[in-house]
Amino acid sequence: MIDLSRARDELGPLVVGALPDDEILDRYTRVLWNILTEPGDRAAGQLVGAVGPAEAFERVRRDDLGDGILDPDDARAAVERWRPRLRSGAVSAALRTARAARLRLLTPHDETWPDSVDDLAEHGPLVLWVRGDPRVLESAQHGVAIVGARAATSYGEHVAGEMAAELAACGISIVSGAAFGIDAAAHRATLAGRGTTVALMAGGLERAYPQAHTELIERIADTGAVVSEVAPGSAPTKWRFLQRNRLIAALSAVTVVVEAGWRSGSLNTAHHASALGRPIGAVPGPVTSAASAGCHRLLRELEATCVTNAADVRELLGWGELPDEGGSADSSAHTSDRTRVRDALSSRSARTPEEIAQRCGLSVTDVQSHLGLLQVEGLVVAIAGGWRLT
Amino acid sequence: MIDLSRARDELGPLVVGALPDDEILDRYTRVLWNILTEPGDRAAGQLVGAVGPAEAFERVRRDDLGDGILDPDDARAAVERWRPRLRSGAVSAALRTARAARLRLLTPHDETWPDSVDDLAEHGPLVLWVRGDPRVLESAQHGVAIVGARAATSYGEHVAGEMAAELAACGISIVSGAAFGIDAAAHRATLAGRGTTVALMAGGLERAYPQAHTELIERIADTGAVVSEVAPGSAPTKWRFLQRNRLIAALSAVTVVVEAGWRSGSLNTAHHASALGRPIGAVPGPVTSAASAGCHRLLRELEATCVTNAADVRELLGWGELPDEGGSADSSAHTSDRTRVRDALSSRSARTPEEIAQRCGLSVTDVQSHLGLLQVEGLVVAIAGGWRLT
Repeated sequence: MIDLSRARDELGPLVVGALPDDEILDRYTRVLWNILTEPGDRAAGQLVGAVGPAEAFERVRRDDLGDGILDPDDARAAVERWRPRLRSGAVSAALRTARAARLRLLTPHDETWPDSVDDLAEHGPLVLWVRGDPRVLESAQHGVAIVGARAATSYGEHVAGEMAAELAACGISIVSGAAFGIDAAAHRATLAGRGTTVALMAGGLERAYPQAHTELIERIADTGAVVSEVAPGSAPTKWRFLQRNRLIAALSAVTVVVEAGWRSGSLNTAHHASALGRPIGAVPGPVTSAASAGCHRLLRELEATCVTNAADVRELLGWGELPDEGGSADSSAHTSDRTRVRDALSSRSARTPEEIAQRCGLSVTDVQSHLGLLQVEGLVVAIAGGWRLT
Repeated sequence: MIDLSRARDELGPLVVGALPDDEILDRYTRVLWNILTEPGDRAAGQLVGAVGPAEAFERVRRDDLGDGILDPDDARAAVERWRPRLRSGAVSAALRTARAARLRLLTPHDETWPDSVDDLAEHGPLVLWVRGDPRVLESAQHGVAIVGARAATSYGEHVAGEMAAELAACGISIVSGAAFGIDAAAHRATLAGRGTTVALMAGGLERAYPQAHTELIERIADTGAVVSEVAPGSAPTKWRFLQRNRLIAALSAVTVVVEAGWRSGSLNTAHHASALGRPIGAVPGPVTSAASAGCHRLLRELEATCVTNAADVRELLGWGELPDEGGSADSSAHTSDRTRVRDALSSRSARTPEEIAQRCGLSVTDVQSHLGLLQVEGLVVAIAGGWRLT
């Protein structure tokens, strides 16, 4: 049985305000579930979703899962994988670590919980651990995830930085994973422009990973937020990186991959975004660059949208198309008799309307009316003997 | 009235074999139409399509177009634009030039006429003038048009050359426009690999355009073909370049744009291909390169397919997908318990199945079965005290 007054003490500054007993119990048992499970545990998601974390745990403790919520085989398998982690003191230890690292614990009951991650349904996070200001998660939901290769080129880092800075300047939050390469370029450019950026981590937040980004992560937490769904004290394993990628895709409104090798982890993020029906942008690069091969793959295989600048990304966000920079792409196809009349003129010698008509294959009447218009625009001039280009 | 025996003499070596009178008349009057009209003249296409070139010309001469083939307004406008070009001796002069330049005259009656251009319907060419071997037009119909910017970068020329050479090595004909930049790179690489290449020109074939490509065009004609739909003696005007682009798109099976500025003429070629329902490929490049802006535009606005190499282009041709170089793009999403078990192992210290189960959040039974498989693959080893990574 859970000692509520101890739970209240241990949660202490991790939760906001004075909570009634049932909410303390809910949060405490969510942390328990957080420890029992790996991210994306479908059975846990279904069970907690159906009866709440406290009752769900009670049923596991009583070994009483035969109520039709889970398939019996799933239930048996689930209990077997949760049981090895049932250790007394595990929750207390995690909460102690969390308090020491000044984390916040977010649950779906909190106002600042980002509803966008609920699109993951039973694969969604049961809690979120946050360093920094949880309120920025609201804007992150309408923001852009910029992700890409750790082994980025200077081209990729340049494009990621420019894109992040321009989007941030429009008030758009930038979400990424604080990794080397593209992620870091996106975070740094956003910070430099005093924009809001959110980093999603694969391990417990008490430790910076990669360690070389300790200061960067600190700076992100200062004005934005650093977020993880795994309990304090958890190592950033490969599995957790892949699940972290799903959270990047779920939190943000659009995912943009800037550079990615043929098998880059950021393709995994894009696939999660695709599965969630979120728009995906891919930044092209030279076909001779291995660092862009994954982006080209997304364009070919996942029907990602080709994005070349911040304006293209804003369109994906549904901010509407900006005024066209240079006419529609088929404007050159809308050539006209006008082109033919101009083709038939010379800038050196004068030509009569009859000569021009014969050269361009138009009637003399048509030629004369075009000449009139071209004259008004100052493109042709009438001289002795006919017309010539100015 | 047309003097048939003179027509036969004048056509002379321009046509293949001994033709009966009606075919001589057809060819001769087609050349007449060729001179009266600019490429893509819809009214001429409809009229000639309906009653044949000789009867169509007879009706124009009699000023008798009130038969319902053309809209009366269209008919009036058409006659007015054709009339300025009605000069006696024009056909003879064109045929004289053609004979001197050793051209061949192709009409839809000829066996080597490429049916693919008939998809242009009433906008299609009435004749084709050919230097070189008209038989290569058969393979050009199943070939690839590689087009792009005149102001290409070395990146673009490199990619165009590699792509053309690889496709040509598979027996695929390369169609282009003999312009500076991408066009020339595609033709040259094909010639270097002894492949077949076809150049479509905007002006009469008696003169090389651009003049600097006189030797290149000569070499193309030696083993492939140089083709134009405009009569000998016609200058390559802007209008004719745009119409030449429609012919590149219509002749070949797939159009690939390698580099193109924001308003490049090769976008016009791509739009024609799109209007004809032919697949379009666009080669991406750095978003910082103005020479690739048109390609990215095609990817965004025309839903062109991103092509990065010859294999991608072969897919567009329907040659079928080649074996995947590196697994499907979402393979990383198909992570499994196996990843979690490996994450939970150390290469330094041994861990018991129970410890591993607790670390990875799986049941001990599952862990043991994965350990067994991993051991078979030589990825883990059982030692005193448990298991470790090899």
